[in-house]
Amino acid sequence: MSQFWSPIVHQLTPYVPGEQPRIDKLIKLNTNENPYPPSPNALVAMRDAVGERLRLYPDPEATALKEAIARRYHIQPNQVFTGNGSDEVLAHVFVALLRQDKPLLFPDITYSFYPSYCRLYQIDWRTVPLNEHFEIDLDAYDESGGAIIFPNPNAPTGRLLPVLAIEQLLRRLPHRVVVVDEAYIDFGGKSAVSLTRDHDNLLVVQTLSKSRSLAGLRVGFAVGHPALIEGLERVKNSFNSYPLDRAAIAGAVAAFEDDNWFQETRRRVMDSRASLSKALAQRGFEVLPSAANFVFARHPARDAAELAQALRDKAILVRHFKLPRIDQFLRISIGTEAECEALLRALDGILKA
Amino acid sequence: MSQFWSPIVHQLTPYVPGEQPRIDKLIKLNTNENPYPPSPNALVAMRDAVGERLRLYPDPEATALKEAIARRYHIQPNQVFTGNGSDEVLAHVFVALLRQDKPLLFPDITYSFYPSYCRLYQIDWRTVPLNEHFEIDLDAYDESGGAIIFPNPNAPTGRLLPVLAIEQLLRRLPHRVVVVDEAYIDFGGKSAVSLTRDHDNLLVVQTLSKSRSLAGLRVGFAVGHPALIEGLERVKNSFNSYPLDRAAIAGAVAAFEDDNWFQETRRRVMDSRASLSKALAQRGFEVLPSAANFVFARHPARDAAELAQALRDKAILVRHFKLPRIDQFLRISIGTEAECEALLRALDGILKA
Repeated sequence: MSQFWSPIVHQLTPYVPGEQPRIDKLIKLNTNENPYPPSPNALVAMRDAVGERLRLYPDPEATALKEAIARRYHIQPNQVFTGNGSDEVLAHVFVALLRQDKPLLFPDITYSFYPSYCRLYQIDWRTVPLNEHFEIDLDAYDESGGAIIFPNPNAPTGRLLPVLAIEQLLRRLPHRVVVVDEAYIDFGGKSAVSLTRDHDNLLVVQTLSKSRSLAGLRVGFAVGHPALIEGLERVKNSFNSYPLDRAAIAGAVAAFEDDNWFQETRRRVMDSRASLSKALAQRGFEVLPSAANFVFARHPARDAAELAQALRDKAILVRHFKLPRIDQFLRISIGTEAECEALLRALDGILKA
Repeated sequence: MSQFWSPIVHQLTPYVPGEQPRIDKLIKLNTNENPYPPSPNALVAMRDAVGERLRLYPDPEATALKEAIARRYHIQPNQVFTGNGSDEVLAHVFVALLRQDKPLLFPDITYSFYPSYCRLYQIDWRTVPLNEHFEIDLDAYDESGGAIIFPNPNAPTGRLLPVLAIEQLLRRLPHRVVVVDEAYIDFGGKSAVSLTRDHDNLLVVQTLSKSRSLAGLRVGFAVGHPALIEGLERVKNSFNSYPLDRAAIAGAVAAFEDDNWFQETRRRVMDSRASLSKALAQRGFEVLPSAANFVFARHPARDAAELAQALRDKAILVRHFKLPRIDQFLRISIGTEAECEALLRALDGILKA
C-alpha cells in the first residue's frame, strides 16, 4: 500500500496463476501445459532468429505471423490480431470491445482472469450461472448486457459448446460483441473462426501455449472482422508497439506450418484424456466430459482440497479452486502417459488410506 | 470505425513508431537501435533457452532477471519490476502511479508515446515547455500536478539533466511521484537509480533495447521503492501474468552479466557520437549536446523534412517529427563508423545541390 499509487490500484484483485515451482522432478498437472515439446521446426526457427539482428526492433505488425494464421484459417491477415500470449490479447479485447455502457456478461464459473481485467479497466460485469451440468447456457445471455465473453471449451470445466449454438447466439444478438476464448479448442472442439466470415460481432481468441506447446514463448491471437481488429490495433498501439519479439514471431510461424506435429501431439493428448477419464471414473470420480487438455473431476467421498494436498505430498501438482460450486473439484492437466499412470498410482494410495 | 468498439477507442491516438522497412541495404538511423550486436553470451543463453522446456510457462516473476538487475545496481530484487520492453513497463506505470486526481506533468517536447498512454488510460495531463535551449526546466514542475514523468536524457533532444537536479526536485516535491525514463542513460548520463534508496517517490525506468542491443527481444524494467513496485505488480498481474518469455529472461540475464561487452559497445557509440556531432557542426548544423545514442540537429538553411526525404532517396533513414518547435530538426541515430561516414557523404551531396 502506498500514498503514491493511483487510486484504482487499491481496487485491483490480480489474477493468481497456477504455481510455477522451481523444483525439478515434480509431476506438474496444474497449469494445463502440453506434456509434449514444441515442433522441432519451431525450435530451429527460433534458434535461427537469435542472432545479431536482435539489435533491431521486431516487426511491430508481426506480419509473417498474421499471414501464417490467415493461411491456416483461409482468412485475410487484416482479420488477425497478435499479442504476447492470449492473456495480453484478452486484456486489449477488454479495453477495446468489452467496455460498453451495459455490463459485460460471462459465466459464473470460468477463466478467473476475467474479473481481474474488469477491475483493471473499470468494466461493470454480471455473471450468468452455468446450468446444473456445468454447461454454459447461451439462452441465458440477452440484450441486458453490453457484450459477452466465454471460453469454449470452458475453463476449468472443459465442457464444449457446439458451433451451432454459438451461431444461434450471434444471430439472436447481432448488436452485441461476442468473444469466444478458444484457448483449448484444438483438443477436440470445432473452432468458431469460420463464423467470423458472416458475423461481424464475433471475435475468436486463441493461444499457442496449449496445443502448440509454446506456453514459454507467449504468443496469442484473435480473429474477427477487420473493424474489430482495427479497434484492437488502436489499443495495442497505445500500449506497446512491439509486443512480440523476433524469436517469438519466428517460432510461432514455424509452429503453424508444422501441421503433422500439431496433429500428432494433440491426438496423443486426447487419447490420454480418454483413458484418464475412464480410469478416474473407475475409481469413483465424477468426471465432466472434457474437450480440453485437462479434466475436471470430483470424488463423492473425498474432499478436493485434501486430495490436492495429498497429491502434492507425493510431488504431483493439480489445481484446486476454492470457489463456490466447484470447491469439490480438481482440475487435472493431461500429462504424458507415464505421468497419468503415476497420478493414478498416487490416487490409489490416497483413496485406500 | 465500428459500432462494436468500446467508446474510448474512438478517442485514441496511437503512437507511431519509426518505420521498420522490410528492405535490406538501407542505412537505418531512424529508431535509435544500437549499431553493434548484443553480447555473444546473451545469444548463447537464448539459444540454450530454446528447447523442450518452452512447453512450460516462464517464471511469472522473472526472478533471475530481477536478481541480475539488483546485483548490478546494488539493490534488492523487490525494488525491480520487469516487462515486455520499457513501453509495456511505462504503460503499467501510467496506470499504477500516474493516474492521479491532478494532471500529469511532462515536457512539451518529449517521448511522443506519453500522450497515447494518457488517452488510453484517461489521464489528464499538462505539458511544461522546454527552455529556449531545449532543456528540461525542473523548476517549472510544481505541486499543481499530480505526478511527473520525463526522460533523461530527454528524447528526441538528447539533452541530459544532472542527477543533482533530479534530487532537488524529489526533495522539493516529496508527495509527488517522479518517473525518470532512462532509456538512453547508458550513453553518457548518470542514472538516478542511486536516488531510489532515499526517495520513495522516485521510479526509474530502463530498457535493454538501446545500450544492450536487444530491441528485438523486448525487455524493460523499473527500479524504485518496494511499495511502488508492488503497485506495478498489481497492475501487471491484472493484465498478463507472464510478459517475458523464457528466451527473453535468459538473454536479458546474460546481457547484464557481460559488462565488458556493454562497456565496449557503449564507448564506441559515444565516440561516434562525438565525431558525428563535430562533423555535422562543420557542415553548418546546429547540434544539441547529446547524452543519448542519437543526435538532434538542424540546418539553418535547409528544411528538415526536405533533408530527410533527400536522405531517404539515398537509402538513409533518419527521423523527422512534424511537431511544433522541432519541425526543423532531424533525429539521427548513431550508426557504425561506416554508417556515420555514409551519412556525411550523402549530406555533402545534398547540401551542395
